[in-house]
Amino acid sequence: MIARGKVFLVGAGPGDPGLITVRGKELIESADAIVYDALVNRQLLPPDAKETGLPELYFVGKRGGDATSVSQDEINELLVKLAREEKRVVRLKGGDPLVFGRGGEEAQALNDASVPFEIVPGITAGVAAPAYAGIPVTHRGIATSVTFVTGSEMPGKSSTQTNWSALAKSGGTIVLYMGTKTLPSISAALIEGGMPPEMPAAAIQWGTQPKQRTIVATLETIADRAAKAGITAPVITVIGYSVVLRDELSWFERRPLFGKRVVVTRAANQAPALTQKLRDLGADVIEMPATRIARLDLAPLREAIARLNDYQWLIFTSQNAVAIFWEQLLGLGLDARALAGLRIAAVGPATAGALLEHGIIVDVVPERFVAGSLLEKLSERGDVAGSSVLYVTAGGGGEVLLVDPRDLGD
Amino acid sequence: MIARGKVFLVGAGPGDPGLITVRGKELIESADAIVYDALVNRQLLPPDAKETGLPELYFVGKRGGDATSVSQDEINELLVKLAREEKRVVRLKGGDPLVFGRGGEEAQALNDASVPFEIVPGITAGVAAPAYAGIPVTHRGIATSVTFVTGSEMPGKSSTQTNWSALAKSGGTIVLYMGTKTLPSISAALIEGGMPPEMPAAAIQWGTQPKQRTIVATLETIADRAAKAGITAPVITVIGYSVVLRDELSWFERRPLFGKRVVVTRAANQAPALTQKLRDLGADVIEMPATRIARLDLAPLREAIARLNDYQWLIFTSQNAVAIFWEQLLGLGLDARALAGLRIAAVGPATAGALLEHGIIVDVVPERFVAGSLLEKLSERGDVAGSSVLYVTAGGGGEVLLVDPRDLGD
Repeated sequence: MIARGKVFLVGAGPGDPGLITVRGKELIESADAIVYDALVNRQLLPPDAKETGLPELYFVGKRGGDATSVSQDEINELLVKLAREEKRVVRLKGGDPLVFGRGGEEAQALNDASVPFEIVPGITAGVAAPAYAGIPVTHRGIATSVTFVTGSEMPGKSSTQTNWSALAKSGGTIVLYMGTKTLPSISAALIEGGMPPEMPAAAIQWGTQPKQRTIVATLETIADRAAKAGITAPVITVIGYSVVLRDELSWFERRPLFGKRVVVTRAANQAPALTQKLRDLGADVIEMPATRIARLDLAPLREAIARLNDYQWLIFTSQNAVAIFWEQLLGLGLDARALAGLRIAAVGPATAGALLEHGIIVDVVPERFVAGSLLEKLSERGDVAGSSVLYVTAGGGGEVLLVDPRDLGD
Repeated sequence: MIARGKVFLVGAGPGDPGLITVRGKELIESADAIVYDALVNRQLLPPDAKETGLPELYFVGKRGGDATSVSQDEINELLVKLAREEKRVVRLKGGDPLVFGRGGEEAQALNDASVPFEIVPGITAGVAAPAYAGIPVTHRGIATSVTFVTGSEMPGKSSTQTNWSALAKSGGTIVLYMGTKTLPSISAALIEGGMPPEMPAAAIQWGTQPKQRTIVATLETIADRAAKAGITAPVITVIGYSVVLRDELSWFERRPLFGKRVVVTRAANQAPALTQKLRDLGADVIEMPATRIARLDLAPLREAIARLNDYQWLIFTSQNAVAIFWEQLLGLGLDARALAGLRIAAVGPATAGALLEHGIIVDVVPERFVAGSLLEKLSERGDVAGSSVLYVTAGGGGEVLLVDPRDLGD
């Protein structure tokens, strides 16, 4: 439950969709409008928004060199406008809103316009990308401080506020945000400031995502090595002694399916569990449903439900079958009470679980979870022979079959 | 689903339980054992663990000056031992595991023992506490870098690795973790290093929590002011020009109930929605259930269920009543089918919703959601008079009443 006419500046985290905060996810799910950046993982956006138009989605990201980019002033105006329309607005930004996120400027604009706002921090890429590359940004005896600095400012430029010479002497880890173009001059400035040229350095592209790439070199060679490897934004560069710990701590890139791309062709509503398992093993999963659960003519099922009393057994072969059956049952103004007098079987525990959610404890579940095993189990019972059986299935094609009892013997 | 025999080094975030990551929360919920620190918000731990013993909970936090504190070596050994018992182990640490969290050392110990591990970053207090105090750690034109540094090292000590003189000249924001005792010497070292004594500084105690306190002063005066205000650990100190933005951006401490302590006396399982609303408004909520749903003798209800066919109506007056009824129903080996032939009423939509979850669409719900209104509504119907009615209720005392039909007229 979030207030209307309010803007939530929410950090989307570094890329891995599991790294958004619980609060951030709840706000996305209850938003009327979401204004998001280029670095926000699209998996975090509500999947139905494109079809339903709700929540309203506004992309305001900068694309490199794109003259049509939305200006910061325009973003500020959009946020104020949406809030004044009494909408619950989520301003979703990659990483953390206040760590090089310009969230402070947006909060100022909202405050100036008397629009209430909240700030929901996110995991910043400067912490998470090194963690996924096996590099602790602080480590006892190795680094007692870490500095996050934008790499987009060219050292020596009159506008720069960063004292690279001082940072070179800080004694801690330096983490550069987004500095592929300026990396040669920044590393030169750090060496000139007294940092050893052989200081370990790592450039991490697409940190925390399945396509993460890490290049390890020294302060002197990292700009050249990263350029040769084709590393471009988004990139985080870590400079400091703790980079060497990567040899021991690189857990993410070590996972069995890291770097493998897997296409999941299951129907969209059946894919999540498999997809999650593959992602946990490190795979870059692309969902491309090749099958779709379509509904065929449900009239025969409805007719069967209308005369349920004619049957003695009801058999469900899948959770989809239960869902389809229940929808039709409710559509006819009936509920679980209509199943009184019927014995009920399910093909396996998931289907039995779906029935329990509708108030029904199944009478028979087979040991092996295939339809054949169910028939075997049923045939062992004395109360099946000669029964009228309603056999509800909803496989790939979604067909619903009514099977005569004698067919059970097959 | 997480692998067994594996350790997940999970950042619990800065204190606000909504700031843990989605991934971190999922791992807590599926853990066999959780090893946690003093700074972890207890609300993140599974509430039933104390009663059920699962997941196993191990507190390994350091309490100031406590000689019985668990050593880092002992923590490492515990993690390895639990993983070798094929448990799914969550090592839950305040903030982020690798930002002054000693997570790198634990990961090294796991790697040495060939125990697989993953690192799940958390929101570090150095980003979140300032954000909740209205202080952006970076801000265009004001701070282009931010340095996180442990304040537990005394400047000048031979062991210190932090070059305070260099940090004083970095040009960016300085965020100190945990340095109340060392704050006087650190601020002196920064001034000596060339940072202006009038640089704005803020000490934030219990950042992101309802009891958050913020003291604003200058670099020269902050140690004294914080000490006088009684600020002790946990504390984050921010030093830099962006501290002044707090006047515009202090959204958290501005909320209507901020600083108010509210005691919720509702029964524990009924409190969450109210509690959440109060917390969103800024209140420090303490749950102190003054009522408890206790169960009295359920034998009469069981007897009634055993002869359900004697009734024509079944009336539920609360969700608890539905839960208790259903438990007894299942306990007797029955399910929703046993309700065939009965008409069913509920006191309101929540109770009706609870019934729908058990497969039942209620036949009657009154307009006003009190028992009296239900009786009125029922009395309008022609099919109630003379019916046998089973009236199921579970109020504060949890009593279950069987009411004769003639009692309905009251």
